[in-house]
Amino acid sequence: MKSDVEIAQSATMKPIEEVAEKMGVGRSKLELYGDYKAKINEDQQIRFENKGNGKLILMTGISPTPAGEGKTTTCIGLADALQKTGKNAAVAIREPSVGPVFGMKGGAAGGGYSQVVPMEDINLHFTGDFHAISAANNLLAAMIDNHIHHGNPLNIDTRKIKWKRVLDMNDRQLRHIVDGLNGKANGTPREDGFDITVASEIMAIFCLANNIEDLKEKLKNIVIGYTIDDAPVTAGQLKAHGAMAALLKDALKPNLVQTLEHTPAFVHGGPFANIAHGCNSIQATKTALNYADYVVTEAGFGSDLGAEKFMNIKCRLSGIRPSATVVVATVRALKLHGGISKTELEKENLQALEKGLPNLLQHLDIMQETFGVSTVVAINKFPTDSEAELEKIEEKCREQGVKVVLSDVWANGGSGGEELAQEVVRLADRGSQTTFTYDLKDSILKKIEKIVQKVYGGKGIELTGNAEKEIQRLEALGYGDLPVCMAKTPYSFSDDPTKIGRPSDFKITIRDVKLSAGAGFIVMLTGNIMTMPGLPKSPSADSIDVDEDGRIVGLF
Amino acid sequence: MKSDVEIAQSATMKPIEEVAEKMGVGRSKLELYGDYKAKINEDQQIRFENKGNGKLILMTGISPTPAGEGKTTTCIGLADALQKTGKNAAVAIREPSVGPVFGMKGGAAGGGYSQVVPMEDINLHFTGDFHAISAANNLLAAMIDNHIHHGNPLNIDTRKIKWKRVLDMNDRQLRHIVDGLNGKANGTPREDGFDITVASEIMAIFCLANNIEDLKEKLKNIVIGYTIDDAPVTAGQLKAHGAMAALLKDALKPNLVQTLEHTPAFVHGGPFANIAHGCNSIQATKTALNYADYVVTEAGFGSDLGAEKFMNIKCRLSGIRPSATVVVATVRALKLHGGISKTELEKENLQALEKGLPNLLQHLDIMQETFGVSTVVAINKFPTDSEAELEKIEEKCREQGVKVVLSDVWANGGSGGEELAQEVVRLADRGSQTTFTYDLKDSILKKIEKIVQKVYGGKGIELTGNAEKEIQRLEALGYGDLPVCMAKTPYSFSDDPTKIGRPSDFKITIRDVKLSAGAGFIVMLTGNIMTMPGLPKSPSADSIDVDEDGRIVGLF
Repeated sequence: MKSDVEIAQSATMKPIEEVAEKMGVGRSKLELYGDYKAKINEDQQIRFENKGNGKLILMTGISPTPAGEGKTTTCIGLADALQKTGKNAAVAIREPSVGPVFGMKGGAAGGGYSQVVPMEDINLHFTGDFHAISAANNLLAAMIDNHIHHGNPLNIDTRKIKWKRVLDMNDRQLRHIVDGLNGKANGTPREDGFDITVASEIMAIFCLANNIEDLKEKLKNIVIGYTIDDAPVTAGQLKAHGAMAALLKDALKPNLVQTLEHTPAFVHGGPFANIAHGCNSIQATKTALNYADYVVTEAGFGSDLGAEKFMNIKCRLSGIRPSATVVVATVRALKLHGGISKTELEKENLQALEKGLPNLLQHLDIMQETFGVSTVVAINKFPTDSEAELEKIEEKCREQGVKVVLSDVWANGGSGGEELAQEVVRLADRGSQTTFTYDLKDSILKKIEKIVQKVYGGKGIELTGNAEKEIQRLEALGYGDLPVCMAKTPYSFSDDPTKIGRPSDFKITIRDVKLSAGAGFIVMLTGNIMTMPGLPKSPSADSIDVDEDGRIVGLF
Repeated sequence: MKSDVEIAQSATMKPIEEVAEKMGVGRSKLELYGDYKAKINEDQQIRFENKGNGKLILMTGISPTPAGEGKTTTCIGLADALQKTGKNAAVAIREPSVGPVFGMKGGAAGGGYSQVVPMEDINLHFTGDFHAISAANNLLAAMIDNHIHHGNPLNIDTRKIKWKRVLDMNDRQLRHIVDGLNGKANGTPREDGFDITVASEIMAIFCLANNIEDLKEKLKNIVIGYTIDDAPVTAGQLKAHGAMAALLKDALKPNLVQTLEHTPAFVHGGPFANIAHGCNSIQATKTALNYADYVVTEAGFGSDLGAEKFMNIKCRLSGIRPSATVVVATVRALKLHGGISKTELEKENLQALEKGLPNLLQHLDIMQETFGVSTVVAINKFPTDSEAELEKIEEKCREQGVKVVLSDVWANGGSGGEELAQEVVRLADRGSQTTFTYDLKDSILKKIEKIVQKVYGGKGIELTGNAEKEIQRLEALGYGDLPVCMAKTPYSFSDDPTKIGRPSDFKITIRDVKLSAGAGFIVMLTGNIMTMPGLPKSPSADSIDVDEDGRIVGLF
């Protein structure tokens, strides 16, 4: 069996102009990055408009398990299938981070015969967007410490600076540092630290900006920390937003590549799905919707996290609405939710499946009832799936009025997803009446409560003393009308990752609160979030190499 | 009078394919980065070959002064002038660092009507080369600390790690840090620090690599520090070189842009001119020589530093040889070397000029006598220059057999450099018999002595105890055959920046020694070198912005 990279490297790509032309994007609108990558560069006014002709299909999934669900792969395969059935289709997904590529094997550009290419480029520097985001992030950091160094007229309290520097690298050594050492010519000693680039608030801002003016406004609103008197200090007060926007202006143009079957693929932006909203840029989704009739997009993790933020943050801020949703599941993962161990997945087990199925059913409830979006279940096919198991899933979903379709895009590309495509088109053409889970005018606590009750199926919330104080403080400072961004384990509807399946009768504890005033949301932390990964003992970097023809080997 | 950015933004660029086509580089060899930037992507075997048809013109200058000499501007203008007189000409210069752009006003892409464009792109992310270099540098750093974190089988002494992380940012706060804090899950506490990207040894390696294999070999040889038992530890032992090469492989392809007069411009690589050799990549110079008949290139600072390293490091390692040299001077700068103050430069002053002229004459000696390269002096014209002053320079240079030509390329582009172009062609066609200043088999001390005597015109060297010990240690470790890379003030031939003009009877003190085993040289530090700049009190970032059409304003 061929590996992902072997399949990708043996693929024949079409020149990106041809791929763009299929959607009606002419050569004059392309900024080429080599022969197979481009940024779409339109007149600013046109570019940021949402003509809204295309129909958006949101790909979400059950609560993730170690068995994997294949959401990105299904997303890409579905777009190929739509194209195969004669539709003008495109896919819009996140771009991967460089850092993790050198840690564990495994890319973030689909798999098998449903991949986006050129995959080595996409997984390494791509078109430089993440470098631009790192630079903008670190320019602001340098300007903060430079302000303090030159007399600190804004009276910034060096113990209350929240803005960290970033690198697109898995580097645990930089998580906690003391900088500004070695005397007064070299800054001001203080505690500090680095995050990985995808965790930067700039990444979230970049993905939520509706246009250049909006980008600048959001950058200006970033709260970098507080004064001695606890007043917020913004990037605007430091006059950093203009120069940061200059660093980001080219990156903001959406990237176009192709799937293995030459379907246009927008791969742009990739914020964390915990401390941020976890989906590709508004720019890319809007541009895709302007040119394609059906756009398949993805939100991180299960519907309780990814789709919830997709709806309540991205859709709300952009005017974009999904016409239909696909919930991806595997028989194996559902059996894991039924409580059996990873080693027992090969065998048919209807009892475990029955016990795990409520997880899927709750995700269907969330998408259909809570958000009002028409839904289909895609079962990502494995050879070990039994007929009886598949029938059981179909039966239970039918009771909720949802069709179940087998997807085999990993092994067969678009032709493995034609039935799924048909159902998606039927649902999307019928349309959906989407609703948000809370009003922006609700109090912060009310917003969280509504999410816990309507999405997670929990009883309510608890707050640490610190979180309670911080929420009161942020409301007093005038940030109470922002949406909330839940940072919760994806493995359970609750905040306890061991409560798999469909837990009930639980409360969610808000342990800490983080203001992202630039991105325009308040993060609710229900546990510790790792914002700077480390490398494993034998990192994949050990075996990555370039051969004498200049080709990368050992990547995945 | 228009500013540099106004001139650049009002220029009409030609599509980069047309610019390449003039040299005979076809579309299939171009990887476009938008419409006006490209990387030249040839078959590996062809790309790294030096067919040697082109003639190389080295631009150097007198010892720099606060008055400025305009070396880059003259370099670009001369290439335009060569093209204007019907030659197939190109220019090969360094690419600028992003960091300083946000500090002081002033770009690094020429000035007036002799600039390379698109200048905003070139000064910001360009084609992402520096980002790739930063990533490769920081991957190695992460792998070092990851090795230590996972048990340190190589027995690296954390107090003897020489490898720093880098950012392409002026950020003094990061010069001296302690990282790895907050318990054993987060690394190992140690003293550390960041340099700016241009100071990374990877930058020097990148610029000195003759091909992919050579790049990998150099990366492998990097000494990152020492074990508890003082044995060197290399990047190869950490298995980092393959993955670093994967990050660098695209960046290694030379960048092509154009001058305001559409002359092909190779802008690629930009190492420091003190702790490294200070000139653009071998890749770019070789590619330019393969396609153009006359290639104008530049080495940092005066001939004592830039040209010395160009000859003894870059030429020696690549097989490239210059056919002629231009030494740039201004009347104003020569008067400064004569000891008058910056406020007195407007007035004719033959005495000051006469006193300052020996500085120029020594640079002519260095180029003609020491290195054996035919030389012409280009006087970068200012309105305040008097006839008598110009005659005096001509008279003195004529005594050394060197012609003096007025250059007015800042105000008039190529047509301001036609006389210079004629003399350059005459010299280059006659050719030069170049020699190196020392043999690689000389001892390290002998190499330095030869540079001090034959280039600087000094009496000899002195060593601190520390430097002496380190030189002995490096020779014992087998690094004695590497060339030396002098890190000395550019303002004087001596190591005392106040000794302007043509000092004599001085000794050079070697204060410290730094091994760059990957780049393949040993740096001799004669004073403190700042490898991480800071931002000024009112950084230019304050006024940089993007307007609603997405155009950058306030840059320079």
